[in-house]
Amino acid sequence: MKSDYRNTVLTGGFWKHKEDLNRDITLNAVYEQFDKTGRVAAFRCDWKEGMPNQPHVFWDSDVAKWMEGASYALYRQYDADLESKIEALIDCIEKNQAEDGYFNIYYLVVMPGKRYTNRDMHELYCAGHLIEAAVAYYEATGRDRFLRLMEKYAAYIKAVFMDKTAEPMPKFQTPGHQEIEIALFRLYRCTGNKDWFDLAEFFLNQRGNNALDEGHSQQIQSHLPVRKQKTAVGHSVRAGYQYAAMTTLARETGEKELADTCRTLFDDITKYKMYITGGVGSRSSGEAYSIPYDFLNDKAYAETCAAVSMIFFAHEMFLMDRESRFADVIERELYNGVLSGLSLSGDEFFYENPLEIHPDNYRKTWDRYPISERVKVFSCSCCPPNLNRVLASLSRYFYASEEGSVWVNQFGESEYACDGMTVVQKTEYPYDGRIALQTKGTKEVYVRIPGWCRSFSASRTYTMVNGYACFAGEGEIVIDLVMEPVFLQSNILVYKNLDTAAVQYGPVVYCAEGLDNNGDVHSLYLNVSDPDWEILPTEEYGCHRLSVNGWRRENAEDAPFYPLQEQFSHTRIRLIPYHAFANRGTTPMLVYLHYRQ
Amino acid sequence: MKSDYRNTVLTGGFWKHKEDLNRDITLNAVYEQFDKTGRVAAFRCDWKEGMPNQPHVFWDSDVAKWMEGASYALYRQYDADLESKIEALIDCIEKNQAEDGYFNIYYLVVMPGKRYTNRDMHELYCAGHLIEAAVAYYEATGRDRFLRLMEKYAAYIKAVFMDKTAEPMPKFQTPGHQEIEIALFRLYRCTGNKDWFDLAEFFLNQRGNNALDEGHSQQIQSHLPVRKQKTAVGHSVRAGYQYAAMTTLARETGEKELADTCRTLFDDITKYKMYITGGVGSRSSGEAYSIPYDFLNDKAYAETCAAVSMIFFAHEMFLMDRESRFADVIERELYNGVLSGLSLSGDEFFYENPLEIHPDNYRKTWDRYPISERVKVFSCSCCPPNLNRVLASLSRYFYASEEGSVWVNQFGESEYACDGMTVVQKTEYPYDGRIALQTKGTKEVYVRIPGWCRSFSASRTYTMVNGYACFAGEGEIVIDLVMEPVFLQSNILVYKNLDTAAVQYGPVVYCAEGLDNNGDVHSLYLNVSDPDWEILPTEEYGCHRLSVNGWRRENAEDAPFYPLQEQFSHTRIRLIPYHAFANRGTTPMLVYLHYRQ
Repeated sequence: MKSDYRNTVLTGGFWKHKEDLNRDITLNAVYEQFDKTGRVAAFRCDWKEGMPNQPHVFWDSDVAKWMEGASYALYRQYDADLESKIEALIDCIEKNQAEDGYFNIYYLVVMPGKRYTNRDMHELYCAGHLIEAAVAYYEATGRDRFLRLMEKYAAYIKAVFMDKTAEPMPKFQTPGHQEIEIALFRLYRCTGNKDWFDLAEFFLNQRGNNALDEGHSQQIQSHLPVRKQKTAVGHSVRAGYQYAAMTTLARETGEKELADTCRTLFDDITKYKMYITGGVGSRSSGEAYSIPYDFLNDKAYAETCAAVSMIFFAHEMFLMDRESRFADVIERELYNGVLSGLSLSGDEFFYENPLEIHPDNYRKTWDRYPISERVKVFSCSCCPPNLNRVLASLSRYFYASEEGSVWVNQFGESEYACDGMTVVQKTEYPYDGRIALQTKGTKEVYVRIPGWCRSFSASRTYTMVNGYACFAGEGEIVIDLVMEPVFLQSNILVYKNLDTAAVQYGPVVYCAEGLDNNGDVHSLYLNVSDPDWEILPTEEYGCHRLSVNGWRRENAEDAPFYPLQEQFSHTRIRLIPYHAFANRGTTPMLVYLHYRQ
Repeated sequence: MKSDYRNTVLTGGFWKHKEDLNRDITLNAVYEQFDKTGRVAAFRCDWKEGMPNQPHVFWDSDVAKWMEGASYALYRQYDADLESKIEALIDCIEKNQAEDGYFNIYYLVVMPGKRYTNRDMHELYCAGHLIEAAVAYYEATGRDRFLRLMEKYAAYIKAVFMDKTAEPMPKFQTPGHQEIEIALFRLYRCTGNKDWFDLAEFFLNQRGNNALDEGHSQQIQSHLPVRKQKTAVGHSVRAGYQYAAMTTLARETGEKELADTCRTLFDDITKYKMYITGGVGSRSSGEAYSIPYDFLNDKAYAETCAAVSMIFFAHEMFLMDRESRFADVIERELYNGVLSGLSLSGDEFFYENPLEIHPDNYRKTWDRYPISERVKVFSCSCCPPNLNRVLASLSRYFYASEEGSVWVNQFGESEYACDGMTVVQKTEYPYDGRIALQTKGTKEVYVRIPGWCRSFSASRTYTMVNGYACFAGEGEIVIDLVMEPVFLQSNILVYKNLDTAAVQYGPVVYCAEGLDNNGDVHSLYLNVSDPDWEILPTEEYGCHRLSVNGWRRENAEDAPFYPLQEQFSHTRIRLIPYHAFANRGTTPMLVYLHYRQ
């Protein structure tokens, strides 16, 4: 199965706009902050005790993710400034890389002589992101300098950890933060060098299995050998990256035990541990997966990077099992839990993505709540450059193909070309459910029927296969997905969401903000029997706003508690896409609103 | 206005049972734990570095509160064992008290030479509890040895802090944890020595007003002079003790500004910051008062001691303003937020009193939740001996009198005698709302009509005064308070409680436990239109259980979220008094249940 962002061009619509926003605004905004905070200068490796901006253990990865995203953008459209920034960084890496291939800013300048002594210090994680950046830059430009530097580094890592032919003897055996596994599989696919596959496999197989790794903790998914890990636990980004790499391995080797483990983990997450927004990792403690159905709304952690990790995992699962539900999850993440991490202006970010804001909780209590306005940079600023690389390579998730068959997974104006097959997609999605495809050279076209869609029609006969409408041959296909706002309830075991409903319209989850609803959203009740929906097309949020019948509950007495007495006044409730929340200052916000019949 | 626990004898019923339980079980249980943990032995002041059980800064107060409670019990019924335990502790205090009168175990044996250097170390707080214990022991037994020791201590404190005639020069000027103010007012009333009144007044007037007190923090109500404190903030026990003392001062001096401040604070708490159970201090951060209407249920802090402090505050307010709503609050605290701190067996305790338990939150997440089963002792074990002293002096809150007028504030079989007046009360309250009073020597009898009571009848004519039915003369009065279960909603600004109702029956707030409801209470819905109440009299919980019509919500799909589809099955919902929750192991619990019409 082939799935490469370079085979697809986004030609218009919602995601094209986001891809352009990332190129024009977000990439520069992230770089600027990384420059200001010393992350870029850190690559010069000239920091000395007493100087400001002491390099932090994960700064390499922050900048590497930006380099990866910038590389994708560069492939799409040449940009001399972008290129020179990347080249300057590569110059630094080349200049400062140790003789043996090692490169990690923190250990080169802050803790020399201490490399591989502390599993928590993100060395292999940073290496992974540098490797991914090098592969992306090579694939985008054809220039292999960075790739060669990183192959040298990978060879050193293999010698230290796997072959034990290089110094030092590491104090741990597998990464404290997974990521290098994904990177090594990419490096293998890019170079064809089986060493990198073997090293990725080695790290996965040793995980939870090697006596050198002390403290086999759930938090870093090191509590069990990976094939014994049957529930998603621990740090959600580490988990997602690991599960994605496990799926790659299972897919490449055809191993059933590992494949089944990945399926079990995917089901565990999507059935029990994923918000309606796609957010995963519900509690701030440990940034971790919690127990089933543990979905706090106002304290939802739902890190942007965790949503990104779920895209990687789901995409690998799709490539392995070819079921539409995996692309459904990618769609849910993209439109909701990932995109909410970025301001509409493209230059401000959320790390945490709550499903409810009651501003006084954050402002006036001493408890920990997510911030209620996006910021330009975080001290741990992993999410912004993760958005850079996802938004610059979005087209990867639109199509895949194999031997005359094309899978159409995401919807938006675009053109796909691979192995003599072409697909031209015309659609206003997600404004509208009509999708027109013109294909050439295809034997079969599999079009995803989204999980949210309860009925659709097609211009040609089809058979349903794994959630896809499969059309034979080539030519025109027009599909109409019936798209209407729907009230979704939570499983009742999500006991905090009882008596509430969320609104989803197509793939987009909605929310109510105080600014559109006279200040307060917590006392609003949706009228689910007679919603009288009004669809308000707008360019403002990239997709529709909605307005719906409802009520506002009012106090019957001015007292802290009083005999039950329901008082309501009619109102219209205005909703905006969840991903667009918190773009107009701090205001209350709710995804799950109360309702009445 | 006179209000002394010694003027009232509880002769039967609910509170007599609790008074007896405290005497027979709780006092011994607390002493036993304090003995086991080294708190009793600490009074020998022979701890040395390297020995186990290093005395903690607040151990004096733990034991002093027990001594105070034991003294009340001793007054009621002679007990040689109890007396000898108290006498042995007084022996220790006498033997180890410093020449200048100072006595604090921690500073005598752990930090000699450091007295009054750290405002956070509870020295004046411990002194206050020792003084209260000495007054209680003197009033109970007539023996004044302890009282004299504590007067010597109080004189030293006055010399150090107020007169500046004794060493050392303290590093602070007012207590870090208020309590000594209450104690000094009691010492003044007991001895007639105006010095103690002056010192209490001094501490109150200097608070938030003295340059020597650094860090004028809200957390310890030191942010402003007390007369400028218009909202309840900070540590809730410190606050309650301070507000009680402020009210005593206002009452004694007749000062309007201070009296109005106390009224404002009381209104602020009871309108915005008190749970239906009487619990105050809703968040664990700082054990503090939070913002208005900030009532978490599963994370309610609602410390038992804070509920006790509200009794003290409310009682002083009653003595000043003679309005029934103050005694209403005392009733709410006693039956709910205070009593929930004690197991039915009398020997296990809660420090925190949540209004909701979902056991997996405490057992399986990393977040901080209240414990879900009572324990015998805490490392900071202030609450158990506070229960000792409140339960042993309950009768203080039943009656008050002045110049021929008697106020009947609490209901239960009892006899009151003061200044030639007697009241004999017969009632099954809170089982039943009928109260029969036989009074002699009274010119007026004021009977509280509880705030929860929506209608009542009386055997004689009366006039309503400040929420009391006022009956002229003496003789028999029979009052029938109509008592039926009622559904109470929260103010809608308590947004987490929308769509839920609590049940109160008379003064008792109810809850549902999983053990009585097939395991799960979170999916239950009260039928508020057709409750078909069943009252289940039982001795088990000291008052009725209830059963009510309802439904259980069921999942329509086995999915994390799905199109809204209400599925209910009929059920009866069984409720027990809130104060009796968590007496049968860990099980889900809810005060605020969902409801349907």
